[in-house]
This record gives sequence, C-alpha cells and structure tokens, in this order.
Amino acid sequence: MNNKELVSSFWRDMDAQKWDNLQSYFEPNAVIDWANTKERFTVPEFVNVNGEYPGNWNITVKRIEQMGNLIISVVFVQLSGENQAFTAVSFFKFENERFSGLTEYWGDVGEPPAWRQSNNNF
Amino acid sequence: MNNKELVSSFWRDMDAQKWDNLQSYFEPNAVIDWANTKERFTVPEFVNVNGEYPGNWNITVKRIEQMGNLIISVVFVQLSGENQAFTAVSFFKFENERFSGLTEYWGDVGEPPAWRQSNNNF
Repeated sequence: MNNKELVSSFWRDMDAQKWDNLQSYFEPNAVIDWANTKERFTVPEFVNVNGEYPGNWNITVKRIEQMGNLIISVVFVQLSGENQAFTAVSFFKFENERFSGLTEYWGDVGEPPAWRQSNNNF
Repeated sequence: MNNKELVSSFWRDMDAQKWDNLQSYFEPNAVIDWANTKERFTVPEFVNVNGEYPGNWNITVKRIEQMGNLIISVVFVQLSGENQAFTAVSFFKFENERFSGLTEYWGDVGEPPAWRQSNNNF
C-alpha cells in the first residue's frame, strides 16, 4: 500500500475499532499529539486511549492530501446514538512506510453561536 | 509574494484586524466554508463576519504546508482577556495568486475530559 492507502486503511480500522491492528501502522518510537488538549501519547498509550474512548462511532474520510512524506487527512466522526460529532485534521509523518509521528486537531461539530444564527447579518 | 508568504500575510492582517485588507487576498467568487458549523460565506460576508466577531484575539501561525496550488495552515487563536483559545486548520486553494476557496476546521483548546485527566491510565 502507498502512504495514502495506509492512511485510508488506518481510518477503516479506527472506524471498525480494530485495536489490535493499530500498532502496526506506527514506528515503535512514534509520538501522537492531540493538540487541542495538549495530550501526548506513545503508540501503546494511543491504542489504549482509543480503546477506552466511551461509546462507538462512525468515521467518514472527507479528504486526504499528500506532500512528500506528509499525509494530511480530514475525517468526520459521528458518535453512535448521540447528537455529537467531530472533525479531525490529522498530520501523518511517514518513515519506512509507517507513521513516525501524528498530530491531530479535533473540533466539535454543531450550530453556530447565537450571534451568527442569522446569516442575513453578513 | 509566493503562496506561503500570502498566507502568512493574510494571518498577520487577521491578527491585526485589518479588515480593509482581507478582500484583496481572495478571488471575487471565492467561497469560505467553516466546516464545524456548516457555515458558508462569500468574500464580503467573510470580511463582515470577522469584523463582527466579539472581542480581540492574538493569532500565532504554527505550521504552513504547500502542495501545488493548495496551502494548509495551522494557527492558534487566543481570545484577549479571556481564558478561551482555538486551533484552526485552513485549506487555501489558489488561483491567479489569490485564494479561490478556503475551508477551515476550528477546534476549542482546553483540558482533556475527565476520563483522560490522569494519563497514568493509558
């Protein structure tokens, strides 16, 4: 698989919650950063934190861009049975056909704040 | 200015709230999408909505990546005088040395949820 295909495959495994598959995508010393909460995980920690994540979800890949050894993906994550969803923009750094680093930016999906509810104002 | 420099200059003007400068970065028919709130703006609407945004802010550019006619930036936005901050990942599509499209993903900066407060669990 090329790098874009590896990222697609990673998100399919994340969507299916196949935790046992996750480690194989990463270099052993890779570090994963969740920038919005300033959390940093090793690969085993990242596998564990995903396994512990409450509930189930449905992940849709919206976009995958490549620049050399960097892949940037955009995914939409809908939590099952809840009116809660997120976007995640992920920066995958590649070495040896594995992720040597991953930095993610997570945002809530929801209504605009009250002052923007009527687009007629703009 | 090259495309990366144009994006840096755009964020400097956004940081300084120089609204009169914003329009010149965009192609006239450009569309701006805020994906998390599913809002879409024309260029004049985008200028207005930024002008109407409550309060002031300080913007720090964390990362700028280029792939052909696409520039992807990551910025950190700290609202002045408030304990509130955001990340924004922005996808700038270029034509004729102007932004022909802009899609942004905004996320809150804050503490991890309670179930992740102790990293010792992972």
